[in-house]
Amino acid sequence: MTRYVAVIGGSEAAPDELATAETLGRLIASEGWVLVCGGLGGVMEAAARGCAAEGGTTIGILPGDDRRAANPHVSVAIPTGMGEARNALVARAADVVIAVGGEFGTLSEIALALKMDKPVIGIGTWSLGVDDRPDPILRADTAEDAIATARER
Amino acid sequence: MTRYVAVIGGSEAAPDELATAETLGRLIASEGWVLVCGGLGGVMEAAARGCAAEGGTTIGILPGDDRRAANPHVSVAIPTGMGEARNALVARAADVVIAVGGEFGTLSEIALALKMDKPVIGIGTWSLGVDDRPDPILRADTAEDAIATARER
Amino acid sequence: MTRYVAVIGGSEAAPDELATAETLGRLIASEGWVLVCGGLGGVMEAAARGCAAEGGTTIGILPGDDRRAANPHVSVAIPTGMGEARNALVARAADVVIAVGGEFGTLSEIALALKMDKPVIGIGTWSLGVDDRPDPILRADTAEDAIATARER
Amino acid sequence: MTRYVAVIGGSEAAPDELATAETLGRLIASEGWVLVCGGLGGVMEAAARGCAAEGGTTIGILPGDDRRAANPHVSVAIPTGMGEARNALVARAADVVIAVGGEFGTLSEIALALKMDKPVIGIGTWSLGVDDRPDPILRADTAEDAIATARER
Repeated sequence: MTRYVAVIGGSEAAPDELATAETLGRLIASEGWVLVCGGLGGVMEAAARGCAAEGGTTIGILPGDDRRAANPHVSVAIPTGMGEARNALVARAADVVIAVGGEFGTLSEIALALKMDKPVIGIGTWSLGVDDRPDPILRADTAEDAIATARER
Repeated sequence: MTRYVAVIGGSEAAPDELATAETLGRLIASEGWVLVCGGLGGVMEAAARGCAAEGGTTIGILPGDDRRAANPHVSVAIPTGMGEARNALVARAADVVIAVGGEFGTLSEIALALKMDKPVIGIGTWSLGVDDRPDPILRADTAEDAIATARER
Repeated sequence: MTRYVAVIGGSEAAPDELATAETLGRLIASEGWVLVCGGLGGVMEAAARGCAAEGGTTIGILPGDDRRAANPHVSVAIPTGMGEARNALVARAADVVIAVGGEFGTLSEIALALKMDKPVIGIGTWSLGVDDRPDPILRADTAEDAIATARER
Repeated sequence: MTRYVAVIGGSEAAPDELATAETLGRLIASEGWVLVCGGLGGVMEAAARGCAAEGGTTIGILPGDDRRAANPHVSVAIPTGMGEARNALVARAADVVIAVGGEFGTLSEIALALKMDKPVIGIGTWSLGVDDRPDPILRADTAEDAIATARER
């Protein structure tokens, strides 16, 4: 079965985060995987742009009820009309989740994916180590590292 | 924007319904539209098979939480884990809905699509005329008729 | 376990429908049952008003994300933020569904409840008989009839 | 409008967490607020038990589709059938969220509530400070502290 990899992160993001997301999209397409994202701007759009540039498929799972809100690089847009509850659908659709930066929405997707026992790889994102428990997020420094980790999973 | 057309109907269906659904899938792909369906068997699978045979794209929006439950002709599967609440997502993703036969699940999708002001075309499906109000479902006798009606919308 | 009975119908309704809904709410409270509704106006508000008048409990499951949209007679409001997808939650929360009049939203709730194998009682609502199959909606002429039927289920 | 306060935490919890949750439930009822929780065991059940002991109302928003899965202290149970996506409904229903311990599910509810701009108060739960940004979770040492903070919001 084709692997689905989610790239999650803020709709507003720093230039280096956008560059990382775009590279992730390119590499996901090169691996023959499908990209899953929230369908909007920022990290979501950069990843979709990269994926499209390599001829890959991007699924955008939108919070609103209008498909036209998707960024132009999304191949297939699903307007859920469910607001933040759609974050659970992003996590559920993915086999592996890669977080790039991100705010509270991204954190909710990380937590939901971990709750669903899916591997989460993080690049410059939330840190979840508590006391003496190790951080459940697998760390990566670059898009290439993240993809290498995803490949092993 | 690419048009999304849902084909809805029972997971168990009569041979003529399956044949109609498969033709619908073929024609939707030929039109360059994207097929939306519930991703499972019966009418959903027949439509997806037809769409795939013409090289088209099928989105399967699944009730369960496992992507592997999708029929093998689905291009992109979204496991919602929401049970029957996913019927609203099928209706919302579509610009036009075509119902082939179907039971209560199909009826709920018809009703949700009508509530969302989307055209619903029916082939041998529920009849919703009440008293002196006309049936809000546009009738078609064949897959070709249904596609012709969808093209006008 | 306390029985939950949904009263569903239009947010705009005729005077006789509102009167029926209010009586349903009163009778549901008198039976010691909990009323489930969509939390907004029309039939939903009339049923909640009747229920409150008899000291009963009404759950309002709202489509929007703001609890303040609930009508003032709702005891407990759940703002789902899911739009029409919340109709599945109304059906799921109920043990029995009573439909009074209603448009497409009501029809979707009827269909979802039937799909979930829950008894649906109708007063002046949609008719779903097809060909030689009997209408799966149990008919009632008055609120009292509907409650008597619900009591047997 | 009556204030709704969610108490969130693990379905398995340490004795001191359960004691804190039960006190929270008692205090929420004493304040005249409504308790919102996920409806299951552990912290959810302890909070509901405390709330019931003071005659308060507890809403349990369940992940499954069977109302009977609710703990016996829940006043009103909503079976969403949406799995983890119900976590967004818990956050949305609440005006204030109090987290007691908790694992990934709790973290997702914290993140969703913060995303929705709702105050989150934490007792022995996740820590979300990143670099030089302060932790967005308001800290409390005891149930009484948490309620005092909630009262100010």
